[in-house]
Amino acid sequence: MRSIAMAMLLAATVCLAQESANFKPASSNVLDAKYPQVDSSASRVLIRFKAPDATKVRVNFWSGPKADMEKQADGFWTFTTPQLAPGLHYYTIIVDGAEVSDPGSTAYFGGSKWASAVEVPEAGADYYLPKDVPHGQVRQVWYHSTVTGTWRDAFVYLPPDYDTSKSRYPVLYLQHGGGEDETGWIRQGNANFILDNLIAAGSAKPMIIVMANGYATRAGYVVPDLTGKAFGSPEFMKVMQERMGAFEDDITQALIPFVDKTFRTLSDRDHRAMAGLSMGGMQTFQVTFNHLDLFSYIGGFSGAGNPFLFGNNKLDLKTDYHGAMADPDAFAKRVHLLWVGVGTNEPERMKSGLEKLHTSLDEGKIQHVFYESPGTDHEWQTWRRDLKDFAPRLFQAAAAKR
Amino acid sequence: MRSIAMAMLLAATVCLAQESANFKPASSNVLDAKYPQVDSSASRVLIRFKAPDATKVRVNFWSGPKADMEKQADGFWTFTTPQLAPGLHYYTIIVDGAEVSDPGSTAYFGGSKWASAVEVPEAGADYYLPKDVPHGQVRQVWYHSTVTGTWRDAFVYLPPDYDTSKSRYPVLYLQHGGGEDETGWIRQGNANFILDNLIAAGSAKPMIIVMANGYATRAGYVVPDLTGKAFGSPEFMKVMQERMGAFEDDITQALIPFVDKTFRTLSDRDHRAMAGLSMGGMQTFQVTFNHLDLFSYIGGFSGAGNPFLFGNNKLDLKTDYHGAMADPDAFAKRVHLLWVGVGTNEPERMKSGLEKLHTSLDEGKIQHVFYESPGTDHEWQTWRRDLKDFAPRLFQAAAAKR
Repeated sequence: MRSIAMAMLLAATVCLAQESANFKPASSNVLDAKYPQVDSSASRVLIRFKAPDATKVRVNFWSGPKADMEKQADGFWTFTTPQLAPGLHYYTIIVDGAEVSDPGSTAYFGGSKWASAVEVPEAGADYYLPKDVPHGQVRQVWYHSTVTGTWRDAFVYLPPDYDTSKSRYPVLYLQHGGGEDETGWIRQGNANFILDNLIAAGSAKPMIIVMANGYATRAGYVVPDLTGKAFGSPEFMKVMQERMGAFEDDITQALIPFVDKTFRTLSDRDHRAMAGLSMGGMQTFQVTFNHLDLFSYIGGFSGAGNPFLFGNNKLDLKTDYHGAMADPDAFAKRVHLLWVGVGTNEPERMKSGLEKLHTSLDEGKIQHVFYESPGTDHEWQTWRRDLKDFAPRLFQAAAAKR
Repeated sequence: MRSIAMAMLLAATVCLAQESANFKPASSNVLDAKYPQVDSSASRVLIRFKAPDATKVRVNFWSGPKADMEKQADGFWTFTTPQLAPGLHYYTIIVDGAEVSDPGSTAYFGGSKWASAVEVPEAGADYYLPKDVPHGQVRQVWYHSTVTGTWRDAFVYLPPDYDTSKSRYPVLYLQHGGGEDETGWIRQGNANFILDNLIAAGSAKPMIIVMANGYATRAGYVVPDLTGKAFGSPEFMKVMQERMGAFEDDITQALIPFVDKTFRTLSDRDHRAMAGLSMGGMQTFQVTFNHLDLFSYIGGFSGAGNPFLFGNNKLDLKTDYHGAMADPDAFAKRVHLLWVGVGTNEPERMKSGLEKLHTSLDEGKIQHVFYESPGTDHEWQTWRRDLKDFAPRLFQAAAAKR
């Protein structure tokens, strides 16, 4: 009897804890939206979704719990996650088979749609938040691409002193992942705040960051209908290859000339870097190694050379990438930074692919940085940390030379 | 018998027409999304939404059809609208009582959430589309507001020659509507392309456009819970009034000084305009008439003085707005442009409110422009046309004076 009373008391305490002031609307919510909520002490997330006539409602965290939600008397469905890693977690709600976004959340472009996401703050970390330091501006620019035959846009971060100085700046081309777009590094990644803070602390050189849309098709190309074709199928890979090639041409033939014409850039290879996350990392390796005349800093965030993301191939340093890495000393002189990163909680195939790349590079005595983000998944907190580690290493060789 | 055969033949023709190549993915779709589709010849929209286990799915065009969708054998639900007016039409899907966005559509911030919208092109009109003319840039800027005590962002359109000239430019403050945000005038309104085209044609003076977030609360103010309070209820209106006042302070005390410090502006009242749509029009009238020392051009797009949007009050020109309009000649000298517009298909209460304002102004011999957008509703095509008519009238008086 006493143990039952104790159990009830404990249960009441648990309920009280869950209902207590610890749960607060997420910073990623739209104006006035009370849900989703984040429990700041335990990094749990409470999702609440209105679907009065639905039979089954599920929540789908892309790198987290996928679970049935519980129907409440008021027509709302709720679910509380266990403790989550810090960062911005994409999720969707599945209402009687319809996969949709949560109207309480800001929409972020991911998974080829405007999805929901909830921000779980990282305790003690503010490197990615707006602080009382000078802020750079982010510009949306439009350029006509002779490659795609269309108007395309890009986002450009300019360092805080750009408008008041007459200096020229080095440029980092920074790419989003598959299913994302040119808005990702600002809206999900807070790349501007990360750079503002690094520059204010003197940890990174003032630089321009260009964020392009990684999807391109050459003028006249019609994307075939991929309905029913699996991710990774020959038909899928053919379209992906076509798009990768078109993007490579677009960035090197249209975007870089436009940026160098439009902004006060340092336009030699010693002052041009490229990095990207996941698919953007694959694109970075393809673009930079095919154009080492244009780039001298290379970063792969949870994505790098094509075979290392999805396969088990081993790097052949003598022949791969046009033999650029056949001579480690020559490579180290030519490429000032080769940087590869992965989150320790990423899916095994991604982690092992990038670890193998790291091992291959080590075996070939290729100078590089291998960074592991502790406890984070194939998600934006990994990539925010990547940028924080990567950016301070940029454009140091060029400075030393001058 | 013959008539039945003829009817079947006709029906078959109708079906064929509906299935024919006329239906094409909307320009507002996300990459590769095949639906929604727009029939270019008849401006009908075909919505298709996956919800295999749902019992009832409805489509909700905010200024258009609200109707049950029809379940197809493949688990998708479809609905084809009758002919719609041109423009960007917000809509949501209601799945077993859950009101959500269509994942095939780009998400636009409206109705206080990231909603869907479908673009129905206006035949023969390209004034709001990107053309082969010089393009201005749109900058996202961050400023710390002493009024709200927070970091706030704004979008700033700079004319195409801003970076290559040393000129100073007049500034138009341009506000979104209720439930929208600072992204609206670029993402929904195409304000940048409208100005690019007007400036290229020599129809409007090169100007800076500042688009702020119209929602603000003073530091320390906590928004009360409005659950269950109706739009227009005293509790709702009190919050709205508080926010209107906070926004007035923020724009005049924080944003304008920031903009004048950050950009090469002409910072006298002869070179500062303000306009807004719906709620933004109400805010424009409040801010400009309370600060005629700061503004000399005023525009209300489907929204103007508070009483004229929702009520039947008559303007008292002797006393309203601090008596600024008591002397028509003095007012005409002081305010270079008072501009009011409305779509002819807007809801009656909005149309009659703005028509009454127009009549009141006429009766008081107050110089103003009254513009009616033919056939459009309380939607973005009205406001795009408003901007196209309004912008060329700006900063002409100042030019004539110099």
